[in-house]
Amino acid sequence: MQRFALLGAGFIGSVHATNLAAHPDVDFAFVYDVDHDRAAALAERHGATATADLDQAFDSRRVDAVLIASSTDTHAEHLRRGADAGLAVLCEKPIDLDLERATDVVAYATTRSIRAMVDFNRRFDPDYSELKRVVDAGEIGNVELIQLSTRGPSVPPLDYIAVSGGQMRDQTVHFFDLARWISGLDPVEVYATGSTLAEPLLAEYGDVDTSVVTLRLPTGALVQIDSTRRTGYGYDERIEVLGSTGLVEARRRRTGGVSRYHAGTVIDDGLHPGWFERVRPTYAHALEHFVAALEQDQPPSPTLDDGLRAQAVAEAATLSLTSGTVEPVTYSQPLPVGMRPHHGS
Amino acid sequence: MQRFALLGAGFIGSVHATNLAAHPDVDFAFVYDVDHDRAAALAERHGATATADLDQAFDSRRVDAVLIASSTDTHAEHLRRGADAGLAVLCEKPIDLDLERATDVVAYATTRSIRAMVDFNRRFDPDYSELKRVVDAGEIGNVELIQLSTRGPSVPPLDYIAVSGGQMRDQTVHFFDLARWISGLDPVEVYATGSTLAEPLLAEYGDVDTSVVTLRLPTGALVQIDSTRRTGYGYDERIEVLGSTGLVEARRRRTGGVSRYHAGTVIDDGLHPGWFERVRPTYAHALEHFVAALEQDQPPSPTLDDGLRAQAVAEAATLSLTSGTVEPVTYSQPLPVGMRPHHGS
Amino acid sequence: MQRFALLGAGFIGSVHATNLAAHPDVDFAFVYDVDHDRAAALAERHGATATADLDQAFDSRRVDAVLIASSTDTHAEHLRRGADAGLAVLCEKPIDLDLERATDVVAYATTRSIRAMVDFNRRFDPDYSELKRVVDAGEIGNVELIQLSTRGPSVPPLDYIAVSGGQMRDQTVHFFDLARWISGLDPVEVYATGSTLAEPLLAEYGDVDTSVVTLRLPTGALVQIDSTRRTGYGYDERIEVLGSTGLVEARRRRTGGVSRYHAGTVIDDGLHPGWFERVRPTYAHALEHFVAALEQDQPPSPTLDDGLRAQAVAEAATLSLTSGTVEPVTYSQPLPVGMRPHHGS
Amino acid sequence: MQRFALLGAGFIGSVHATNLAAHPDVDFAFVYDVDHDRAAALAERHGATATADLDQAFDSRRVDAVLIASSTDTHAEHLRRGADAGLAVLCEKPIDLDLERATDVVAYATTRSIRAMVDFNRRFDPDYSELKRVVDAGEIGNVELIQLSTRGPSVPPLDYIAVSGGQMRDQTVHFFDLARWISGLDPVEVYATGSTLAEPLLAEYGDVDTSVVTLRLPTGALVQIDSTRRTGYGYDERIEVLGSTGLVEARRRRTGGVSRYHAGTVIDDGLHPGWFERVRPTYAHALEHFVAALEQDQPPSPTLDDGLRAQAVAEAATLSLTSGTVEPVTYSQPLPVGMRPHHGS
Repeated sequence: MQRFALLGAGFIGSVHATNLAAHPDVDFAFVYDVDHDRAAALAERHGATATADLDQAFDSRRVDAVLIASSTDTHAEHLRRGADAGLAVLCEKPIDLDLERATDVVAYATTRSIRAMVDFNRRFDPDYSELKRVVDAGEIGNVELIQLSTRGPSVPPLDYIAVSGGQMRDQTVHFFDLARWISGLDPVEVYATGSTLAEPLLAEYGDVDTSVVTLRLPTGALVQIDSTRRTGYGYDERIEVLGSTGLVEARRRRTGGVSRYHAGTVIDDGLHPGWFERVRPTYAHALEHFVAALEQDQPPSPTLDDGLRAQAVAEAATLSLTSGTVEPVTYSQPLPVGMRPHHGS
Repeated sequence: MQRFALLGAGFIGSVHATNLAAHPDVDFAFVYDVDHDRAAALAERHGATATADLDQAFDSRRVDAVLIASSTDTHAEHLRRGADAGLAVLCEKPIDLDLERATDVVAYATTRSIRAMVDFNRRFDPDYSELKRVVDAGEIGNVELIQLSTRGPSVPPLDYIAVSGGQMRDQTVHFFDLARWISGLDPVEVYATGSTLAEPLLAEYGDVDTSVVTLRLPTGALVQIDSTRRTGYGYDERIEVLGSTGLVEARRRRTGGVSRYHAGTVIDDGLHPGWFERVRPTYAHALEHFVAALEQDQPPSPTLDDGLRAQAVAEAATLSLTSGTVEPVTYSQPLPVGMRPHHGS
Repeated sequence: MQRFALLGAGFIGSVHATNLAAHPDVDFAFVYDVDHDRAAALAERHGATATADLDQAFDSRRVDAVLIASSTDTHAEHLRRGADAGLAVLCEKPIDLDLERATDVVAYATTRSIRAMVDFNRRFDPDYSELKRVVDAGEIGNVELIQLSTRGPSVPPLDYIAVSGGQMRDQTVHFFDLARWISGLDPVEVYATGSTLAEPLLAEYGDVDTSVVTLRLPTGALVQIDSTRRTGYGYDERIEVLGSTGLVEARRRRTGGVSRYHAGTVIDDGLHPGWFERVRPTYAHALEHFVAALEQDQPPSPTLDDGLRAQAVAEAATLSLTSGTVEPVTYSQPLPVGMRPHHGS
Repeated sequence: MQRFALLGAGFIGSVHATNLAAHPDVDFAFVYDVDHDRAAALAERHGATATADLDQAFDSRRVDAVLIASSTDTHAEHLRRGADAGLAVLCEKPIDLDLERATDVVAYATTRSIRAMVDFNRRFDPDYSELKRVVDAGEIGNVELIQLSTRGPSVPPLDYIAVSGGQMRDQTVHFFDLARWISGLDPVEVYATGSTLAEPLLAEYGDVDTSVVTLRLPTGALVQIDSTRRTGYGYDERIEVLGSTGLVEARRRRTGGVSRYHAGTVIDDGLHPGWFERVRPTYAHALEHFVAALEQDQPPSPTLDDGLRAQAVAEAATLSLTSGTVEPVTYSQPLPVGMRPHHGS
């Protein structure tokens, strides 16, 4: 049984709260939020205790693990505090929007040897897990080309955009992580270009809503990612991996399995209306992995270092959007022992 | 909030227990089972109270509704007792394997005006609900032909077969109900023929493992149902409704959305290994409907009469299997007021 | 090189003419039709010679094979004449609507040992050939259940209905043949029931437009066939074969591969508007098989006896439609040597 | 009726010969090839006349149109000669591997006002035509992102590679054309990067076998193209167009419609083994368009200028492969009157 404190009681915090409450091996102890009323309401709904005292949330006598789902600008500080207390930490991405600050706190956490995981939840999508299994089993030979699509139904509010770090750091970063995870390789070079086709006001924030990214992996394998903020047809993710002997694809997911036949057309169920309907189960699966790792005293994955490395790609991609040319990806060096990226093969 | 007693702590009882415990508007009060230890273990897992005293389970001061998931031969008696106590009842199918006895207890329950529902859970499959919606909305015109497939991966144990009532009453009955529900019509005639291709020993029980049924509806519309007990490829259900202006199909459900491309073939994820993996969510959806009906003081559906009518079709089909010819379907008459079958349009 | 005379210059005759003209091993010599102008026009289009003289069309010094595509009531006489002349014969189905008359002429042709084939063209559909290959290769184990759908977009003109022999003999007969071919077995029993849902006037012809048929094979395997005359969504054929270890399906065929995604729906290309668009290539494939058999001096298949046997099933099904009960299927006995039905395994 | 001379009797010449011979409005007059025996064999097969005299092939008293399917280095000269003779010209791509030389001869042909078309046959794929129709009809709103895949099953022989101009000019150029055609826009900027993953020896030719290209259109819309030379799973093309209100996709094409279900997997027919099986019908469709344009005295499309413009993109992409950075696309200026690119809307 793992005792958890949840930091953050907003939308994503409430998602985590539901999963914490439902997990048979979790004792959902505390909820903390800067808005205590919000914490109290969430805690009550799930039989946890709201606390206004961070010391209590990080008290290793009462808590085994913290789940950081607070606002982005607090992640690093919470992570540092969790490390100080020797707690296990499950941290929403990003560790910090500032890569240097993120790198510092990860280095600090590493010296404390805590169990820590960045919540790149899409790795825990059942189709993506199966795709990864197929790749790792060698069923398609060497990875040569990966295509990923991430397409949201509507542009987020501009006040969200303002603090998001931009499309690469906010949206595409999940797919930088997936590309690394699937290939087991760190991109060496990135080219990104984008436009503001859905919302011209994004330009005022130096952001884009429609972009394509090309990554080069050290083997010469290539990665294409397209990211859009407004589709008109729902939330759309797709991955396809071309190998030397075959192809594996995680197809677009439909909401149902009903087909209607009329003259000249067949009408099927469409895609999910939004990202959350599509990826909701992945949060529970990620938590299951994290708890199982703690129970078995194993290192969970993706690691904090995976978080830094995906951010490093996002940094280079963001730079490329502005520079208009290819940018190298620079990772902080050297890798701490035991923090090698999680590779499939 | 509805207070529930659960009768039966076997496999299906434990499925219901999970759903009762998770439902926000349910107070999961009691678990009763002839095997008290089994009841106690299940109750403890979900924070309910095990009781060895049926009076407690049917005490209307402490319970609003009973969920009958005990062995088939006890359903009628529990239903009668629930009616006596004026409780709402959600009853696993069948009400009783003996149609006459089932008819009697339903007549009795009807005089008590309780809220009661037979748990034909497949009506609550999201794809089947959508198919029903399409039909009811007139998108395919008049219903002219319905095809239903129900195919299990493996023959049940022979001791189960011995008390099951045979393939028509045990397996196909769900699809008799679906045919009635989709069309809003009671079959008037049935032809059934079957074989023992998977397990020759079934013949000793007067049972079959592979059968096809043809139903004639009063409009002249036709229904085809194939039922098999052992597929070799997993659990398979499919419905297709041909109307005067179009077709609607609830496609076979795959377990995932991954495709692998190799020379000459594309390999997709397959079907579910067993019936439970396929229909698991429908139990929760059926419970949600039942609870919502209670909360809104509305009659739930499918009604007990729906249960009798599907059984009446199964009786005639079972007879046809033996007689080798077409059999009329006879329903008990007249229908009690307010017990008309639930029709879509 | 095989020299052909084509008998019949109507719609289906013109389809055969196109295929005869395009076949590299065919010398398309003559066209005969009771309407000589029609024959002349067709012959001219394809560089053949129209003849008003049947003696010329059956002259074995000038012709190797005749393709009988004239009106149904002339098939038997043309077949007899081809047998007299020792010519190879490719005969449109049916041999004769009257099964006794058909049996007689087949017996006569058999004594002459000619190469003869009934043009059950659907056997030559590439998907059905592949399905047959899968079954024969044992990939799904023993055949246990076959489902076939044949669904036309619109009721034929009533004057066609009047001479068609009814839905079983006219439409479903192709699928009786497919069921025999796929299973390698002759049905022993048939139950058919139908309705006039699309065109009530069919009742005046003793015909139906919507029907379902159940066949029992000697192994206990079962066959379901649904036949409809008016779908509202185009021309629809589908076959699925359930075996002891797996399932093989020839899916509905779409006209194209374009998908449109909008909010909540995915719209794909639909089915073919009519039967001819769907099955057109099968006529050429059937001719290719026939010509190859002649070139290699092998017996072509399906044989005349296959034609009789499919008709025998259609007779019993037609009887069942009226009698309202199960009917045995009776085949003429004994089978002539060398005329055993073509079985897959 | 249009009288044609065919220049070139190699593989692609023989494809065109078959289509010329089958077209009802074509009088297939002459075949010319530097290898006269090859011309003679092809001519004989299709009832045409082989000529060793180019004057005859370009004699406007005997010929209305020439189809240039000879080796690439002769295209420009044949086009010039066709223009001199005032003949209509259907020219295999490219006009000339040297863009400057191609531009010169197009300018020359333009002054002669001949009917001329570059055989970008993929525009005539039925699915791509339908996709184009959907885009032009505004069904997906404004085009914002186009994805195209072109993936061959095996690396061509190195002696072909040596004269091919490289992957961009040889393979991807078709998809540069498709991107222009679908969007109705000329790319302004291109980034391309590639690797030699399938055949390291390609590096000696300055060529790649696996590449991705990003195009920017003047509206800010983006295009992604991936091109590979060796897939391991057959020949694969796919297009998807994301618009402001929806998505349209021309799906991967399968060779058939058979599915096999086994435990845990569904196995479908795969892709075509090679490019020719996949695109074969498009050559006939392209010819039909060209002949219809001549018959109706309309300008055929894609024009010679379309050919130049696709080549201009290929030039910039080829440069980008080497320079490692984004390159502008430069088109020759000004456009001749009447030679505006063919836009969809």
